[in-house]
Amino acid sequence: MHTAKDKARLMARIRRIKGQAEALERALENEVGCAEVLMLVASMRGAVNGLTAEVMEDHIRHHIVDPANDNSSQARGAAELIDVLRTYIK
Amino acid sequence: MHTAKDKARLMARIRRIKGQAEALERALENEVGCAEVLMLVASMRGAVNGLTAEVMEDHIRHHIVDPANDNSSQARGAAELIDVLRTYIK
Amino acid sequence: MHTAKDKARLMARIRRIKGQAEALERALENEVGCAEVLMLVASMRGAVNGLTAEVMEDHIRHHIVDPANDNSSQARGAAELIDVLRTYIK
Amino acid sequence: MHTAKDKARLMARIRRIKGQAEALERALENEVGCAEVLMLVASMRGAVNGLTAEVMEDHIRHHIVDPANDNSSQARGAAELIDVLRTYIK
Repeated sequence: MHTAKDKARLMARIRRIKGQAEALERALENEVGCAEVLMLVASMRGAVNGLTAEVMEDHIRHHIVDPANDNSSQARGAAELIDVLRTYIK
Repeated sequence: MHTAKDKARLMARIRRIKGQAEALERALENEVGCAEVLMLVASMRGAVNGLTAEVMEDHIRHHIVDPANDNSSQARGAAELIDVLRTYIK
Repeated sequence: MHTAKDKARLMARIRRIKGQAEALERALENEVGCAEVLMLVASMRGAVNGLTAEVMEDHIRHHIVDPANDNSSQARGAAELIDVLRTYIK
Repeated sequence: MHTAKDKARLMARIRRIKGQAEALERALENEVGCAEVLMLVASMRGAVNGLTAEVMEDHIRHHIVDPANDNSSQARGAAELIDVLRTYIK
């Protein structure tokens, strides 16, 4: 269960990844150099990492505890975890 | 410059990732649970890692030295690097 | 704040990493081959990932919600997150 | 077989990781907070990634082909691979 805003953001990220897959298909069709293919793959990987971090963060906020709505020690723990995950997954 | 066989393999991997992005779009549209979305994202990440390792390996074989065609110490070095990359990127 | 048992487990993991760093120092002193050094580094990386996943899991259990002590929907959300993190960080 | 300079650089990286493991041991002994432990682990992970990238790069230069000593197309391929690995492993 995501909010409409979360869902729109996730959709935009997923469509970006689909666009990157299509760009890679075209690049291979057009026989671009290997170095350029490696760049496109690296940038797709960055986009998948960004999506992963965002889905985990949404999961924490909506299914565990949302630091934005809460001042408890659990909420502080969740805020710390979100910070660590953002650093870790990129 | 990839061989036709390499190119077909890379294309299959890229189309799989595009299919996974489309499955994720449908999953979000259908409001599936967060845990299932996290699984789909993890499996897309595995596919992107597999693609990365394969593009790097093709690059080594075609632009540096191919261990399959060569018995030099460079070729052994390249074979060791390919092994390490396969372990590292997954 | 960790339980004594958690702390002992984390200490064992950290000492293992220290031992791996010492093995790497000796390997370099003894001029072992590059391929062997790459293996030792890969295994240290695995150990650091294992430590990361365990510290994150302890953080979730002790500072957010512990699925072992609780049957709430938050606890289920935390259990799902722990599963995903274990898969992701390795 | 590493040059003396490469070896000194790798040794410095390994000792830094050993120092980070010791700092983590002290942090756990002193019951510092979980968030601080997570930071120390993240910074150790960064150091292990830096070491990995450097060992791979040394391997390419000394056992495959060194872009610094060579103007061949293989050397250009190796330089591109080193660039991609630096971006990938961090």
